[in-house]
Amino acid sequence: MSIAVIYGGTRPDGNTEQLTEEAVKGLTVDRIHLNTYTIRAIIDGRHAEEGFPEMNDDYKEVIDRVLAADVLIFATPVYWYSMSGIMKNFVDRWSQMMRDGDYPDFKKTMAAKKAYVIAVGGDLPEIKGLPMIQQFQYIFDFMGIRFEGYILGKGNKPGDVLQDAEGMFAAERLRNKLAALN
Amino acid sequence: MSIAVIYGGTRPDGNTEQLTEEAVKGLTVDRIHLNTYTIRAIIDGRHAEEGFPEMNDDYKEVIDRVLAADVLIFATPVYWYSMSGIMKNFVDRWSQMMRDGDYPDFKKTMAAKKAYVIAVGGDLPEIKGLPMIQQFQYIFDFMGIRFEGYILGKGNKPGDVLQDAEGMFAAERLRNKLAALN
Amino acid sequence: MSIAVIYGGTRPDGNTEQLTEEAVKGLTVDRIHLNTYTIRAIIDGRHAEEGFPEMNDDYKEVIDRVLAADVLIFATPVYWYSMSGIMKNFVDRWSQMMRDGDYPDFKKTMAAKKAYVIAVGGDLPEIKGLPMIQQFQYIFDFMGIRFEGYILGKGNKPGDVLQDAEGMFAAERLRNKLAALN
Amino acid sequence: MSIAVIYGGTRPDGNTEQLTEEAVKGLTVDRIHLNTYTIRAIIDGRHAEEGFPEMNDDYKEVIDRVLAADVLIFATPVYWYSMSGIMKNFVDRWSQMMRDGDYPDFKKTMAAKKAYVIAVGGDLPEIKGLPMIQQFQYIFDFMGIRFEGYILGKGNKPGDVLQDAEGMFAAERLRNKLAALN
Repeated sequence: MSIAVIYGGTRPDGNTEQLTEEAVKGLTVDRIHLNTYTIRAIIDGRHAEEGFPEMNDDYKEVIDRVLAADVLIFATPVYWYSMSGIMKNFVDRWSQMMRDGDYPDFKKTMAAKKAYVIAVGGDLPEIKGLPMIQQFQYIFDFMGIRFEGYILGKGNKPGDVLQDAEGMFAAERLRNKLAALN
Repeated sequence: MSIAVIYGGTRPDGNTEQLTEEAVKGLTVDRIHLNTYTIRAIIDGRHAEEGFPEMNDDYKEVIDRVLAADVLIFATPVYWYSMSGIMKNFVDRWSQMMRDGDYPDFKKTMAAKKAYVIAVGGDLPEIKGLPMIQQFQYIFDFMGIRFEGYILGKGNKPGDVLQDAEGMFAAERLRNKLAALN
Repeated sequence: MSIAVIYGGTRPDGNTEQLTEEAVKGLTVDRIHLNTYTIRAIIDGRHAEEGFPEMNDDYKEVIDRVLAADVLIFATPVYWYSMSGIMKNFVDRWSQMMRDGDYPDFKKTMAAKKAYVIAVGGDLPEIKGLPMIQQFQYIFDFMGIRFEGYILGKGNKPGDVLQDAEGMFAAERLRNKLAALN
Repeated sequence: MSIAVIYGGTRPDGNTEQLTEEAVKGLTVDRIHLNTYTIRAIIDGRHAEEGFPEMNDDYKEVIDRVLAADVLIFATPVYWYSMSGIMKNFVDRWSQMMRDGDYPDFKKTMAAKKAYVIAVGGDLPEIKGLPMIQQFQYIFDFMGIRFEGYILGKGNKPGDVLQDAEGMFAAERLRNKLAALN
């Protein structure tokens, strides 16, 4: 099984990345850093006569890597109690992909995947991160993706999450599960 | 009291806009269409030595209009069970504003405002839109903004929301409240 | 279609009852006041050798009335951000019913029903009542019941809800829907 | 610091109890098994002329033990996506205690406490147990109690939770925290 990590963070070696790397240590993983790509916000063309506009950005390059993986790890810092804006723009664009003639099997291919969410926040993430987890569940349900689990780590300053014993333990446990699949 | 509507939609005359316009009909309102501005995703510089980078986009022009209003209406379609990516990027950047020397009173000024949320979704918004409402509440709580109410309308195809009697009634009721302030 | 209202309140003519009666005015409805029955808390016997104990209370009398209806309205005050304890005990006992040899079709019969929730609370019910709504959704999903809608009214002192224009409007709208079924 | 565990389960040695006992192993703890007491459902008398009725049950005996502790652990199985009915009845009655002349400092005394929640469920508790956690947060916020953390364990059949490595690890970590207070 191939694994892709979709990183939604915006600084190098942030807490979310550190926790996620703990979960994939030693595994073969495709790391997709969304912030290194140009991904434009969706322009809703579902009901437009001319359909969705051509976006001329890097989206298809990213989505091809995503589609190639069997297991997706959505790794995002908790910004303002939900996923980062760049990750949200990435997800919003799925609406366009579902109507893209070049990707007739987009939803079906996504539906065959398993997903995990790893997120780190500073303001009571284990409580205030819960609406975000529910949203990921709705998103995955809509697509038919199996939501296999999540980790809500705690951290603010760089390196904080390494002191979050529950988070680190959960990451280690996840690594064992992923290794068994890999 | 001055009112600003912050529009997060990405098509003209979408359902969210129709419902919101019902709520502000006849009132003096500053309409801020986020999709007409360039608002870059945040680059988290809270812990970077050099701080946040200069973004060279339209953010300050937008935020100045926001700061000038007493009442904010966040009007966003429900995309994938939460606010649109462009609205999320707009909110994410508040983290930068709170550390911007040119806006020393950003949080304090925001804390004096009242906020409403108007959102329209197609997939059971009155249930599946709830995590988004909770996130807005956390966001407003963090900033000290008073969350005065929300409307979750139903709609998918253009014009659908005009058939959503509860939504339209709530918009009319909100208009009366806003008119009393205005 | 026959309609049953399951009342979870504990005072006569409370706000929840007033709002609910607005929604069923003029309709033929079976009103089940849980507080007029003895319904004991479940004793979890799912894994006990001897199974569930005989409870010797009024539960089966209540459940027979519930099973006879096509549409169920769960009408509960919001006590401490969720349904009342007496309604919770009523729901908890479904676990026993699903293993009761006298009711082999319990789940199947319940799965054929449609459900509404009407609840009135005093502390920001439209926000803080949301987890309760999500729980009802999980409950109905588990049983296969169709969750047709809910009303979260506002009120504290007797009669308050009659001043809640949105709540009363939603009740009136629900009445029209129920009348069309009735 | 003295610790009380408030048990809401209804079978001996259930998963919730096993997980909770892991968290308090070796500590001096007052174990309150709600199912061994008679606790009647509240009869809402907030607005009744005669006030709340005398209940003639064991409530005050229970609440006296609760009030004597500095740290409260609410340990409940997840029944139908929320706390058990007997625990809900226990909480509902706080409304009466806040108006009981014999307990003029009820809310103030409760506000000085710290609380934890330990709950075990069988149907995706880490997702579907989240509304319950939000409700506990609202409950604690209302009372001024500090919500120090929670554990959502997984289990169905007796003993299942002992195989829930994350849950058991979290229990061990909690024990270390409690021991430092004790």
